[in-house]
Amino acid sequence: MTNKEIILKTKKEKIMKRAAQLFLKQSYEKVTINDIAKTVGIQGPGIYHYFKSKEDLLSSILDTSFKLCKENIIDEMEKKSDPEEKIKILLTNVIKLELRFGEVPLIVDDSLDKKFKKIKKERQKEIVTIIRQTLQELAGSKRLKKPIDLTVATFCLIGMTVWIYKWYNPKGRLSIEDLTDEIIRFFFHGFYGREEVRE
Amino acid sequence: MTNKEIILKTKKEKIMKRAAQLFLKQSYEKVTINDIAKTVGIQGPGIYHYFKSKEDLLSSILDTSFKLCKENIIDEMEKKSDPEEKIKILLTNVIKLELRFGEVPLIVDDSLDKKFKKIKKERQKEIVTIIRQTLQELAGSKRLKKPIDLTVATFCLIGMTVWIYKWYNPKGRLSIEDLTDEIIRFFFHGFYGREEVRE
Repeated sequence: MTNKEIILKTKKEKIMKRAAQLFLKQSYEKVTINDIAKTVGIQGPGIYHYFKSKEDLLSSILDTSFKLCKENIIDEMEKKSDPEEKIKILLTNVIKLELRFGEVPLIVDDSLDKKFKKIKKERQKEIVTIIRQTLQELAGSKRLKKPIDLTVATFCLIGMTVWIYKWYNPKGRLSIEDLTDEIIRFFFHGFYGREEVRE
Repeated sequence: MTNKEIILKTKKEKIMKRAAQLFLKQSYEKVTINDIAKTVGIQGPGIYHYFKSKEDLLSSILDTSFKLCKENIIDEMEKKSDPEEKIKILLTNVIKLELRFGEVPLIVDDSLDKKFKKIKKERQKEIVTIIRQTLQELAGSKRLKKPIDLTVATFCLIGMTVWIYKWYNPKGRLSIEDLTDEIIRFFFHGFYGREEVRE
């Protein structure tokens, strides 16, 4: 990449990050190109130098978010063979991603255009399937007598984690590591149950 | 109430229910008075016979939702003295309410106007405080050695339950009772842990 390309890329990333934050805070509908331009300190039409339209901008944000999820969650899970390790990677990296990359939570934001909803739904479905399969493997590997219903467990896992960015304060008393440990402890206890582990 | 008043009330409730569903599906911003009128089979301006404005309509929906939560969750919890019973009531009735009354999930919908956000935030805070206190009582009553961090547990409980209406299919293989049992089992196992109960 030339210097010029690097600058362009950095600027694009900055715009995407800020736009995602605005979309999450005020909804995609409400935020204008001017609002976004203002937060990155450029004139309104200047945005069009980087993105064709607001739709194009959102599309790029979603692509990046799903790419980040794929690389940091799905690919990392696949490197492990133990299903318990896979779920640990999943929980750890979901939390890391949504707190570090403000654009990731847009994946589950429901106030988006119909067009995007469809794309998102499909990708979300893939993720749900992977989680469900991994939990099935886990229940099998631990020989749980009466595991939590896999659909319920899958959506509990997702529900517990996807809105952490809304309530968690990174400057508060709980570090991200502590938070992650607590979520992991809660999830595995919940899923394994007390009397159900046969080992 | 006179017959006329009963009809008015029923009609108002119907409009609120349908409007809430539309708001949740497409966001408050996007839905027009005409859209709402169409789904209840009246002419657009006819809505103004029941509600002053879209804002007034949303305001009524939120009031009703919070009232339902207060009566069916908070008041019912207060009737019990055992914190475990309180949490069971909470989980059971949250699920029942959000699946039976389509307007209740609007309480956690984030695509609303700033004005409503403030009101909602305050009421949400009350609920969070009550859950957290009950979990603290519960940890004490069970003499848990190392309970899950109370803030984490509170938001896990909320996260697990508030979006059930989005993924759960009441016509699917899992009855509401089975779903509730699984959620209760998962939550208590998660919160108590395996080796932590001293009794």
